[in-house]
Amino acid sequence: MTQELTLYHYWRSSCSWRVRWALAIKKIPANLVPINLLKSEHKSHVYLAKNPDETVPSMEINGHTYGESLALLEWVEQTYPNPSILPKDPLEKLKVRQLAYIIAMGTQPIQNLKVLKYISDSRSEQIKFANYWVQRGLKTYETLLDGKKGDYSAGNKITLADLCLIPQCYNAQRFHVDLEEFPKIKKIYENCIKTRECQETAPEIYKADF
Amino acid sequence: MTQELTLYHYWRSSCSWRVRWALAIKKIPANLVPINLLKSEHKSHVYLAKNPDETVPSMEINGHTYGESLALLEWVEQTYPNPSILPKDPLEKLKVRQLAYIIAMGTQPIQNLKVLKYISDSRSEQIKFANYWVQRGLKTYETLLDGKKGDYSAGNKITLADLCLIPQCYNAQRFHVDLEEFPKIKKIYENCIKTRECQETAPEIYKADF
Repeated sequence: MTQELTLYHYWRSSCSWRVRWALAIKKIPANLVPINLLKSEHKSHVYLAKNPDETVPSMEINGHTYGESLALLEWVEQTYPNPSILPKDPLEKLKVRQLAYIIAMGTQPIQNLKVLKYISDSRSEQIKFANYWVQRGLKTYETLLDGKKGDYSAGNKITLADLCLIPQCYNAQRFHVDLEEFPKIKKIYENCIKTRECQETAPEIYKADF
Repeated sequence: MTQELTLYHYWRSSCSWRVRWALAIKKIPANLVPINLLKSEHKSHVYLAKNPDETVPSMEINGHTYGESLALLEWVEQTYPNPSILPKDPLEKLKVRQLAYIIAMGTQPIQNLKVLKYISDSRSEQIKFANYWVQRGLKTYETLLDGKKGDYSAGNKITLADLCLIPQCYNAQRFHVDLEEFPKIKKIYENCIKTRECQETAPEIYKADF
């Protein structure tokens, strides 16, 4: 593979972390370009020509830019299959995607910065709103982990589900959600953040670039 | 394939329509079981044991139930590949998933009934909120269609992108979004609803079951 990849990202964007982490797991080289949401760089003409959705992350692949973190992760998985972030068995894969989407479709979009800004100017109101939806999503996720074995969301390999869960847990703490209420998730979080690839792609690592 | 499939759905749920439509395209037989959200059947103990997320659709496959419409659609695509709802080429597939997720992750979750109920008891406030986010999502989608050829979102075959777009357009009209503002989307909508599988799985067809 000699594809030239550029990832546009923001240090504290949970969706950006998902992709940074997957690239690290698969040892895929990419240029990282910071897009500072607080300076509205995602609304610049240059960036909008790449991603009209005004969101990060997006990824330039051989000169064309694509958005939507989960779409990027599926492309990464198909193009660089090893190590895999999805199980081979179709029903096991369905379980992993269900978990991933409970976060990526059912939780993250509702507690997104642009939604919070639309809801209220008050930080405490924003936190109250985000707290409710993050609690709700993590509660479903925790219930679906009943009977689970292994260190991560789906056994002893990090999957797409973990790539969505851990950045959401990071956000959860900003919204005063106590992970103690979700013991299985908390254990997975602790296990994931012990891994080098998770640590090396965590938000704090990139903060200084912005 | 002799898998026993049961789809739990609600007639007006856009996510339910996505799956009904895919099953029809692929001619996959399934038992359809109505879950009436207005009667809180999605919060019954029996249903929660199947899907703790209190959402439709969910699908029982060989005795186990899975949620998240997009996870179900990916399973359906892998298990019943013909006719396909995703292009073979990895970058074309990425484009289709990007479009699908602009609706499924970036739009639908924010204008979901449970979010609207949380936002306000006032129907006009709910419509104002939903209208804003649906307009936003469709605007991005329309921009990404620039230069597109063919009858549907990605050429001359119905894909995952259309399965997400058309039910969202149906919701859009309930939220007073005018499709005339999105001429490319409007044309795709008109082309899709001419097809038998789209018509036969549309919300109104199932209304009487509830």
